[in-house]
Order: sequence, then structure tokens, then C-alpha cells
Amino acid sequence: MSARTVRPANQDSAGPRILVQKYGGTSVATPARIRRVARRIARSRDAGWRVVAVVSAMGHTTDRLVALARQVSRDPPAREMDTLLSTGEIITAPLLAMALQEIGVPAVSLSGLQAGIRTSRSHTRARILEIDPTRANAELAEGRAVVVAGFQGFTESHDVTTLGRGGSDTTAVALAASLEAESCEIYTDVRGIFTADPRVVPEARLLPAISYEEMLELAAVGAKVMHPRAVEIGELYDIPIHVRSSFTEAPGTVITRSAGVEDRNRVRGIASEEDVAKVTVVGVPDRPGIAAGIFSPLADAGVSVDVIIQNVSREGVTDLSFTVPQADLAQTERIVRELSASIGAQGFSSDASVAKVSIVGTGMLGQPGIAATMFQTLADAGINIDMISTGEIRITCIVDRARTRDAVRALHRAFQLDVA
Amino acid sequence: MSARTVRPANQDSAGPRILVQKYGGTSVATPARIRRVARRIARSRDAGWRVVAVVSAMGHTTDRLVALARQVSRDPPAREMDTLLSTGEIITAPLLAMALQEIGVPAVSLSGLQAGIRTSRSHTRARILEIDPTRANAELAEGRAVVVAGFQGFTESHDVTTLGRGGSDTTAVALAASLEAESCEIYTDVRGIFTADPRVVPEARLLPAISYEEMLELAAVGAKVMHPRAVEIGELYDIPIHVRSSFTEAPGTVITRSAGVEDRNRVRGIASEEDVAKVTVVGVPDRPGIAAGIFSPLADAGVSVDVIIQNVSREGVTDLSFTVPQADLAQTERIVRELSASIGAQGFSSDASVAKVSIVGTGMLGQPGIAATMFQTLADAGINIDMISTGEIRITCIVDRARTRDAVRALHRAFQLDVA
Repeated sequence: MSARTVRPANQDSAGPRILVQKYGGTSVATPARIRRVARRIARSRDAGWRVVAVVSAMGHTTDRLVALARQVSRDPPAREMDTLLSTGEIITAPLLAMALQEIGVPAVSLSGLQAGIRTSRSHTRARILEIDPTRANAELAEGRAVVVAGFQGFTESHDVTTLGRGGSDTTAVALAASLEAESCEIYTDVRGIFTADPRVVPEARLLPAISYEEMLELAAVGAKVMHPRAVEIGELYDIPIHVRSSFTEAPGTVITRSAGVEDRNRVRGIASEEDVAKVTVVGVPDRPGIAAGIFSPLADAGVSVDVIIQNVSREGVTDLSFTVPQADLAQTERIVRELSASIGAQGFSSDASVAKVSIVGTGMLGQPGIAATMFQTLADAGINIDMISTGEIRITCIVDRARTRDAVRALHRAFQLDVA
Repeated sequence: MSARTVRPANQDSAGPRILVQKYGGTSVATPARIRRVARRIARSRDAGWRVVAVVSAMGHTTDRLVALARQVSRDPPAREMDTLLSTGEIITAPLLAMALQEIGVPAVSLSGLQAGIRTSRSHTRARILEIDPTRANAELAEGRAVVVAGFQGFTESHDVTTLGRGGSDTTAVALAASLEAESCEIYTDVRGIFTADPRVVPEARLLPAISYEEMLELAAVGAKVMHPRAVEIGELYDIPIHVRSSFTEAPGTVITRSAGVEDRNRVRGIASEEDVAKVTVVGVPDRPGIAAGIFSPLADAGVSVDVIIQNVSREGVTDLSFTVPQADLAQTERIVRELSASIGAQGFSSDASVAKVSIVGTGMLGQPGIAATMFQTLADAGINIDMISTGEIRITCIVDRARTRDAVRALHRAFQLDVA
């Protein structure tokens, strides 16, 4: 299957179909780029679409706002931080609406509040509860392009919230669902989703299509292009998500329910993540409740534990290894130090020089040969596998961080991902 | 009368009284200045006040936003411009709330919408229609300092508006009225209201008090410290407006209903304005409706005509002179050129090198000697008076612009304004 060509479906009595386009910070970093985005939106309208554009803050605006906050507060309160950061997107939105009007496209900007994006009260990481699309629909019906400030919403009490990482993508896909859009285009500074990071593997191939499931797994294990939240919403409401570059006309990658039958038996992509640390609790008494006793306190502290391996018990004791984000290692060590005494473990060790390398693909289902190929490939490259974790459509190995790139390249060759 | 000392009145069962403080762009230009403003607010709270702070955009933020708009649009649409510019104040407000919390003062920021400031739909120059103080009162009752983004409000359809020139001052005084505050302090980069511009008259004296009426007249004829809109609201709701510097502890000037009996027979202040042009329509047939025939089209074009003089008619024709802002001269000339033919005038002339010099004071009421002193003083200084216009508490002379400063200095001496 080639990339799904996104174009208006047969126009029915409801008028032209809706296309949501999300433009990231790089795509709107300067007034000249904002003018270019306006021309792209104009072309989509000429092609028959009603367009809703969701925009991020220009370039490094968010970083500058964070720096301002740090100059007045050592620990800026979350509610005020959200109001401050939300201005980044609220600056971009009217600028794009102006640029559109300048080239003759009627347009209106909407803040998260004006776009009806109601969220939870969890400042800095709010969840969208519901979207009231009345205003956006009314503006579209008047023939206007609608520009929505991404990354933000509002609570019942009209406080401003932000959506955390992947926020503008989430705004875009959720709006697409709420407006019953035909598709959601994510314009970013890369050309789409690749079989591996092209900076690591020069022969990495652009994937014309990938399934929600595969994209979620790839994002979870290190692929940075799309945040899993937006992909989940796309899957839930069956909104095709089209990832492409705002700097070219190339088609990019479509994330959709089914990504092409002829790739069934293939690994789809390889991802790696380097900011990972491994912790091993040594000589843990093997009795019920021990794992919960270790991982509940870590969860309470907000540490997200990833790969977990428990060795086979030997003489009533076992070793328990797990990975955490490197940024959480110091906190994890503090907690585990206290715990290992109380649960009667012999001690613990940690290793901050590991990395995760994962292969993902729906074609792996029921194909045990793929795991064997992965392990053999790494062995042939002289790369030791520290831990292994498998999901339905994913296999992850923890390896020495110094060998991450070698591992990714070897696997890319072994699974022939450079071949379409 | 000395400056009214602003302090909480006897505390009644309703708890401490409310003080509204407005901090202009210079006072919040940097994070360090925002921290200083936070400390000043903390001191006001220590003195027993509930504080509502209204803030402007930091330093040159608004200019930078305008420059961004000009890079995407030759003529930025007003609605989008308002949304864009409103972010300047929405950045300052949470930063100040953060700085307050950092020094232990509970605080919350509110946008114009969150503060319930509903306005007309006239973008870029909206008028406040009503303020719903529910949220601000609730936050004050919880013991929080409330920081409101100035200069902005919202329409019934939740669109963002800005209030135009003097906007943040207007927000502050209107909020003070709506919250039944004891007083409104306007913190600015000057020490208060002076008898004349201290850059022109070094011996100009700070006025400890001035009446709303006098302040309105001074502002109308060139004093830039306070915009007339805010003063009008203060007068309407009897809110004392306290103009002072955020860089000193000096008491500044209180604008209030009655500004001290012992200054009754005095000129209060002198103002001048240099961006003025004079237009004379020559040989106008002296018949009813002629003045309306000239000034209605100018009003329709948005030209604000100021001083108007019609000479005594001679042989059925007269000359009609008036002043306009210099920026409007070209447009005025276009309109008058068409008009003078249609009304049968002989022609018109214009002079873009004049200035307005005014003396203001309630003490002038029924004191004809003051006008005589003004004219004699200018004559003694060899300054020719081009036109004269008088109000109840104001006399304005149009003079050669090159002599503006000489005129102001001579009048300051003649009326002994340097003497308290």
C-alpha cells in the first residue's frame, strides 16, 4: 500500500470535509515561516478542504518563558506556569490568522478556551475532558480558516491548563475527532516516520504507512516524532494521522488502523532510547507481595519503571532488575536503599550506562523467528544483551549504551528495513 | 492640604479594605523589577490591605508584538491584533503571581476574562461595559493577592479586546470601583503630577493633590501621566487615584474630588502639546450650517478637531480656524480642499509649526485676572498668540512651536508655580 492520499471525500450536502493541520514550533519559528504555513493552508482550501490549523509556540518561545519564570521563582507554581506558557501558542495563532487574511483567506484565531477545549485541573499535564466544537464549526461554516492555539485548555472555573508533552499534537487529533474531520496532518521538522532514526541509520526508509499500534509501541520505546497520547486518541476515534514536513510537499507517513497487508511479516521499525538506567535489587526473598512492595513506592514517587525482569528463584531468594529514566535514577536509589533493608534484600546495584533497543511490527505476531534473529544479530555484532522484554508486537533489549548505534544499524540490516 | 495618606480605614466586619495598585510597563520591565513589585505588594499587605495588582506588559513587549504582526500583515486585522497584544499583560501577571508566592504571599493571576472585565466589541479601543468581581472577590476572601492583566477584556462571545491608550490605568480604576476599593495607586516611572513637565521646567513642583477636573483638563491638553479615561471613571465612582513612582517610597500625587482649599485661587499646572497643526478656511460665507458642513465630515473621518475659532463676520464672510493632531493634517487638508469648493469658501491655509500651551486650575473660576496675566506674560516674552480657547478651568493659547518651552517657563514663573 502506498501512502494514503488525503483529499476530500465525495462532497455531500454538509459541504466540504474538514482537515485539521498541526504546525509545530519549527514550522512557525519566524514570521517568514508563518507566511509559508499560511500559503500551505490556502492551497489546502483551494483543494476543497475546510481547514483547522493547530499551532505550537514559535521556535524557542516556550524556553524563554520558562527562563523568565525561573528568574522570579525557584519552583514556579503550576497554575501560574500554565497561564504563562499558554501565551506562546496564543501569540502564534493570531499571527497565522493575520498572515492568512493578508493573502485573502478569511481566518480567525481561537485560544484553547475559545475553541472549547475543557480539561482536567491537573496543571502542566491536563487531560482533555471534552471539546465543545460550536465556535469552531460556526467559524468554518462562515468560510473561515480556524487557527487554534495548541497545547492548552481550560477548566470549569476558567483557569488555563496546558497538556504537557505532545500537547499540541493531542489538541490537533482531539479537535479532529470532535469536528469529525477527515484526517489530521501533523507538520513537523522531519519528513515522517522512518524505519529507524535517519541520523543513526543513513539508509533508514520513510514508512508510507504505519498502524496506530505500531506507532504507539515505537513512541513508547524512544521514537520522538509523535507522542503516544495523540496516537491513542487517533486510534480511539479512527482519525488518520498524517505526519509530514512543512518544508516539503513530500507525502510523509499516514498512521492509520491497518498499515498495508504486504508488510505483514515484517519488522516495521527500530527505536532506541539512551537516557535509561538499570537498577538491580539483589537477594530478594521470593515471597508474594515483594514486587508490589518495591514498585508501589516508586509509582507513588512518580518514577515510571519500564522493563522489569525477575530471575528464577534460587534457594528462596531472587534478583529483581528494572529500568527507569536516567533523570529519576537518584530518586530511585534513595527509595530502593530504604526499601531493600525493610524487605530483607541483600542490597542493590545500579548502572547508568545502558540503553534500550527495540524492534516493532505487527508482523512479529506469532513469528518466533524474529526474536531469534534479533538476538543472533546482536550476538554476531558482539553486543551483550543485559535484559529482554517482549510485547505482542515489540521486542526490547537492554544493551551497553556505547553500542546503541551499532545495535540499531545491525538490526536495520538484518531485518532489511532499507528495502521497500 | 498635604497628600492624602492612603491607609486602611477602620477595619469593619467585612475585613481589611481593598487597595488596587497598577504597575506600568517600566515598573515590571525585568524579572528583578517584578520581584521588587512583589515586595512592595507584600508591604501593602503587611500594612493591612487586601491588594489587587493590575499589570502592564513588560517594557517593550507590546512594541515587539506589533513588529511581529507587521511582518505577517500590512494591515493587521483588529480582532487578531487584540488577541496578540493581550498576551503581553498575560505574561506579566503570572510572573508577578509567581514572584509573590516565592516570598510567601499567596497570589493568583487573572486574565481580563478571568477577572470578569466585559467590554464592547470595538477592537483596539474597547470600552468596559461591566465588571463581574465574583472571582476576584473570592480570591481576596481566600487571602490571596490578585494580579490582573491590564489593558484587556472580553466580549459576550469570549473574544479578547484591548482598551486602547491608557488601557491598564482604566482597568485599574474600573476594578477599584467594581471592588469598592479604598483607593487606586498608579505606579509609573514619574514621581507624580507636576506643575509642568520637569524636563521643560526644572523648578516644576510635585503636586501633592489635584482634582479630577483639573487632571482631566491637564491630560486633555498634553499632560501624559494619566489618560483621561481612567480619571473620568475615578471621578464617577469617587475613587481616589494615587499617582506615584514604583522606584521610590515618595508619596506622589492624589487625584481626588477636592484638592485642597488653600490652593483655590491658584493656577494648578501648565501643559503643552507640540504635535498640533492649525488649519484656516478663508472667506467662508457666514450662514447657518456652515460650521457643521465643515466639521461633520472631519468627525466622520475620525479627525479630532480641537481648538476652534471663528472670526467676527465682515461683509458676509468669515474665517474659520481650528487645530488638529499633526498626524491627521494630510487627511484634514484633503477633506477641507473638497469642502471649501462646495461651501463657497475662498480657500484654506494650514500651519504645521504651532503648539498648544495651557494653564489649568479650579482657582481660575471667576478670576479674569488670570487670563490677563497669561496673555501679558506671553507678550512680555515676545511670544505671539495665534488663537485662544478657554474652558471653565483652562485657558489655551496656540503659539509658534519654536517658542513652546519659553512660553511654559515664563508662565510657570508668572504664576509662581514653583512656590508651594
